[in-house]
Amino acid sequence: MWTINTAIVASRVVSAVAPSCRRFSVISRGVMAKSKFEYVRDFEMDDTCLAHCWVVVRLDGRNFHRFAEKHNFTKPNDSRALELMTRCAQTVMTQLEDIVMAYGQSDEYSFIFKRKSNWFRRRASKFMTNVASQFASSYVFYWKDYFKDQDLLYPPAFDGRVVVYPSNQTLKDYLSWRQADCHINNLYNTVFWMLIQRSKLTPAQAQERLQGTLAADKNEILFSEYNVNYNNEPPMFRKGTVMIWKKIKEVISKEIQLPGETEEKTVEVARTRTKPVALHCDIIGDAFWKEHPEILEDDS
Amino acid sequence: MWTINTAIVASRVVSAVAPSCRRFSVISRGVMAKSKFEYVRDFEMDDTCLAHCWVVVRLDGRNFHRFAEKHNFTKPNDSRALELMTRCAQTVMTQLEDIVMAYGQSDEYSFIFKRKSNWFRRRASKFMTNVASQFASSYVFYWKDYFKDQDLLYPPAFDGRVVVYPSNQTLKDYLSWRQADCHINNLYNTVFWMLIQRSKLTPAQAQERLQGTLAADKNEILFSEYNVNYNNEPPMFRKGTVMIWKKIKEVISKEIQLPGETEEKTVEVARTRTKPVALHCDIIGDAFWKEHPEILEDDS
Amino acid sequence: MWTINTAIVASRVVSAVAPSCRRFSVISRGVMAKSKFEYVRDFEMDDTCLAHCWVVVRLDGRNFHRFAEKHNFTKPNDSRALELMTRCAQTVMTQLEDIVMAYGQSDEYSFIFKRKSNWFRRRASKFMTNVASQFASSYVFYWKDYFKDQDLLYPPAFDGRVVVYPSNQTLKDYLSWRQADCHINNLYNTVFWMLIQRSKLTPAQAQERLQGTLAADKNEILFSEYNVNYNNEPPMFRKGTVMIWKKIKEVISKEIQLPGETEEKTVEVARTRTKPVALHCDIIGDAFWKEHPEILEDDS
Amino acid sequence: MWTINTAIVASRVVSAVAPSCRRFSVISRGVMAKSKFEYVRDFEMDDTCLAHCWVVVRLDGRNFHRFAEKHNFTKPNDSRALELMTRCAQTVMTQLEDIVMAYGQSDEYSFIFKRKSNWFRRRASKFMTNVASQFASSYVFYWKDYFKDQDLLYPPAFDGRVVVYPSNQTLKDYLSWRQADCHINNLYNTVFWMLIQRSKLTPAQAQERLQGTLAADKNEILFSEYNVNYNNEPPMFRKGTVMIWKKIKEVISKEIQLPGETEEKTVEVARTRTKPVALHCDIIGDAFWKEHPEILEDDS
Repeated sequence: MWTINTAIVASRVVSAVAPSCRRFSVISRGVMAKSKFEYVRDFEMDDTCLAHCWVVVRLDGRNFHRFAEKHNFTKPNDSRALELMTRCAQTVMTQLEDIVMAYGQSDEYSFIFKRKSNWFRRRASKFMTNVASQFASSYVFYWKDYFKDQDLLYPPAFDGRVVVYPSNQTLKDYLSWRQADCHINNLYNTVFWMLIQRSKLTPAQAQERLQGTLAADKNEILFSEYNVNYNNEPPMFRKGTVMIWKKIKEVISKEIQLPGETEEKTVEVARTRTKPVALHCDIIGDAFWKEHPEILEDDS
Repeated sequence: MWTINTAIVASRVVSAVAPSCRRFSVISRGVMAKSKFEYVRDFEMDDTCLAHCWVVVRLDGRNFHRFAEKHNFTKPNDSRALELMTRCAQTVMTQLEDIVMAYGQSDEYSFIFKRKSNWFRRRASKFMTNVASQFASSYVFYWKDYFKDQDLLYPPAFDGRVVVYPSNQTLKDYLSWRQADCHINNLYNTVFWMLIQRSKLTPAQAQERLQGTLAADKNEILFSEYNVNYNNEPPMFRKGTVMIWKKIKEVISKEIQLPGETEEKTVEVARTRTKPVALHCDIIGDAFWKEHPEILEDDS
Repeated sequence: MWTINTAIVASRVVSAVAPSCRRFSVISRGVMAKSKFEYVRDFEMDDTCLAHCWVVVRLDGRNFHRFAEKHNFTKPNDSRALELMTRCAQTVMTQLEDIVMAYGQSDEYSFIFKRKSNWFRRRASKFMTNVASQFASSYVFYWKDYFKDQDLLYPPAFDGRVVVYPSNQTLKDYLSWRQADCHINNLYNTVFWMLIQRSKLTPAQAQERLQGTLAADKNEILFSEYNVNYNNEPPMFRKGTVMIWKKIKEVISKEIQLPGETEEKTVEVARTRTKPVALHCDIIGDAFWKEHPEILEDDS
Repeated sequence: MWTINTAIVASRVVSAVAPSCRRFSVISRGVMAKSKFEYVRDFEMDDTCLAHCWVVVRLDGRNFHRFAEKHNFTKPNDSRALELMTRCAQTVMTQLEDIVMAYGQSDEYSFIFKRKSNWFRRRASKFMTNVASQFASSYVFYWKDYFKDQDLLYPPAFDGRVVVYPSNQTLKDYLSWRQADCHINNLYNTVFWMLIQRSKLTPAQAQERLQGTLAADKNEILFSEYNVNYNNEPPMFRKGTVMIWKKIKEVISKEIQLPGETEEKTVEVARTRTKPVALHCDIIGDAFWKEHPEILEDDS
């Protein structure tokens, strides 16, 4: 409903108080009996997230193995794709409410809503569909900024879920779980693709070579056979992307008309804005959380 | 995860049987202990939709009042916007599984999954996030096909919900509820905007004029003051859009090489495909359901 | 709260409309700030059963293997115990609301609430705790009526669950599942205990003897070795107990004083009451449902 | 199922691993096809309590206003009834698993399960039906120990609910909420019944007299009109009952036969047992929690 319909706008204001009459005060004017079909709203189930808990929405690209093939993603990591994901996460954080942090790697992104968020009365379905749809529309919208020479062939989907964490420790362990996943997969994939791209092994051969190897073994293969120090690989690949809010000083130009003068003048104005910024740091250890205590703070 | 990583592909096959080890058989090779963070998966809650019930996902445009203003939507109805919505619904039906029907009006669309769908083991979060994200990415992807002279200024979000209906009657009543909503709002808006656009009333004056009027009164205003017979308004505006699957005969050209001949020849081949098609018909009465008995049929 | 406290009674009447203020309008008079702790009610989660569906509560005796040992239950079936269970089920049906049928066997009982019951606004927790506690208190209360020579040594517990069925067919299949379970277990146990009690096998030997046997084999053992025709075993053991509501004609004696007479006179008065009665019939086939169409009827 | 049926016992052991085949490995021996009805288990919904959270089960007497009238409860407080409730709570704590604390007042009792309890895999329905049924059967079982001169006329029911608290603070606030409720209601009822019993007011007059009074006003009425210092009223009435586990030193007599002796001798043996004990203390302030830090400790 996008027209300026003050009657409906009015009814929506009411709906904050009495959601069961959303939109439909208008129906009383109509020829259709409101009562006849309205009962179908009774089938809607409550999916409120437990109060005072961290709400996490995690998205995963749907069929992104195929999507990556079709769009010629670089292996094992495609910087353009990772940076586009982060651009989408930034849009989600800016457009939606109450997200304090996000973490992304590969084709997944997790968004952390603040403990005491009351956005959409904490309904899980609202959290996850807003995140999923805002992320997906942004993915198409910003595609060309990152994939200059590669057309987008079809619009992708992302599936999502909501998980609720009752304490700071469980939330931190969730994020550690995702970053450990990033590390393990990236180390594996880095060696796997070296074996294929440089040593011309088939995927099956590369897999067999790596079977049963430990992290130390993989580091050793990289170093001794390809002269690659894994720790010097780009942090974005090894650590994924952490998005947090930071105060940014901006200097912008403004046209102002000074008193007593007839013409406008351009002046530079400094202002501070809070923006989501991307980091590629460790979040498993304590250092990150000590440096950014405000993330877990309970500001109600 | 988009790289060809056969180890992980293997672990995903396993995951159909034992979902708790999804992705992570791989971790046993790694330096990080699997057990240390893996416990956070225990916080995921089950949101399976009740078996044998119709699953409905309804999307609504987020802040589409503002979105319509910014993108100069025609009032009270913008055919481009409605047709773009339907294009997105078609993509959703084609790309996702088990959707038997969809119904859209204004900035909302409802998708009906078949009673016995077992897509994603009937998890509500999977149904709604896939629908929401596929719809939203399609909205941006197909925008230019419908809005030739209007750039898309920012990527929109859609919020969604899942509602479960246990019987054919309750499902039909749900759809009737949405179509009745379409009728009531569109009749109201049609008069409202006539009063503003043709009679130059302010929104407040138009609203006051319509307060307390019945459908018959509104029809009368349209007819006597603007010579408009509401029943002749476009069905897409009055009835919304019904999407169902239909067999379509297509004739395609194929290059084939006949036996004994050396050159390829172009021949026309007819084939039948099932596609989502858009109707603008009444779904409140029995006629539609009698004409399309297969929609509610239980083919398991 | 059992005292006549009109203020609180008043607040409870209000609570039907505004449940969030249950009990606590009274608190405004108190010295404790209502707001300080009242927020803990926000942690209560909704557990409404899907509308228009059959709600089934099934109870199972907790640790009834031990309970049966301690109270010297006859094996494989103890009529006293089964009849006590049915007495409890009758109390549950009479004391609680909207139960249309019950089915019991062994140490379990299932209660079917009518499709459109709105008892306690269909909250699952209310359904199951009322059934479980009413059943358990009745078990102790009526114990002596059935176990004349056996003291009750300790109070038993029952665990319960709620399952929701969307259609008549699924409900009937649920009941068939329980009755099939009764049949299979009772046939097995009948032979098992014959082997032990009559042929003096140990439990391990009896189990080994029965391993891999089909129903026909077990019937044959009963007939050829013990001259027992399984079909002549008591229906309560083979079929379990079905409780439905039936109109019962009662003749009661009343003391009445006729006009013009000075003394009371005893007269017999016939009246019709609806009561839960116990049957031991097949409910898997159609016959039962054809004979009692009112059970599945939708009287709203 | 109470007979020694080793086949079924075996299948129950299996069920810890694969709950979907509970009981029914046995069915493969039967004539009924397992698959035909077994599908009805798919309708069971998961109701797992969020991990790492405190699980609270609260019971309320059903229709206890009527129950108290019928059984001549003393007003405003009946010590026999309160002590019977506590006896039931003690049985619940002893018979069920993982309850660390209970709090009762009037006709309600709350049971706190430890944060990391995995009893019945944390299923809410199991927690609440076991508590409700064990409490209710105990109520009838122990009735005569407390109501010597009053027969139990009918078996009562209790309704229950589960609420989940994510932190120590929210759990403590829940308990404070219940104890504040006890205080407010008891102060009100104490004055209310003085007005009726001593001053011969009707309930309506008593209610009118108290309307709008604060706690201080009620204390003043008690003191000036009835010479009652509310703080000297029994703590059980003012504070309710707190049940916690305490180590109790018991001295028991044992018959033992010493080596080299032919006859048994009675010796006194001291041993330490952990039992639920009843306190009537404040749990809103910090003192209680400082004195009993083990209650909120996380021993996993």
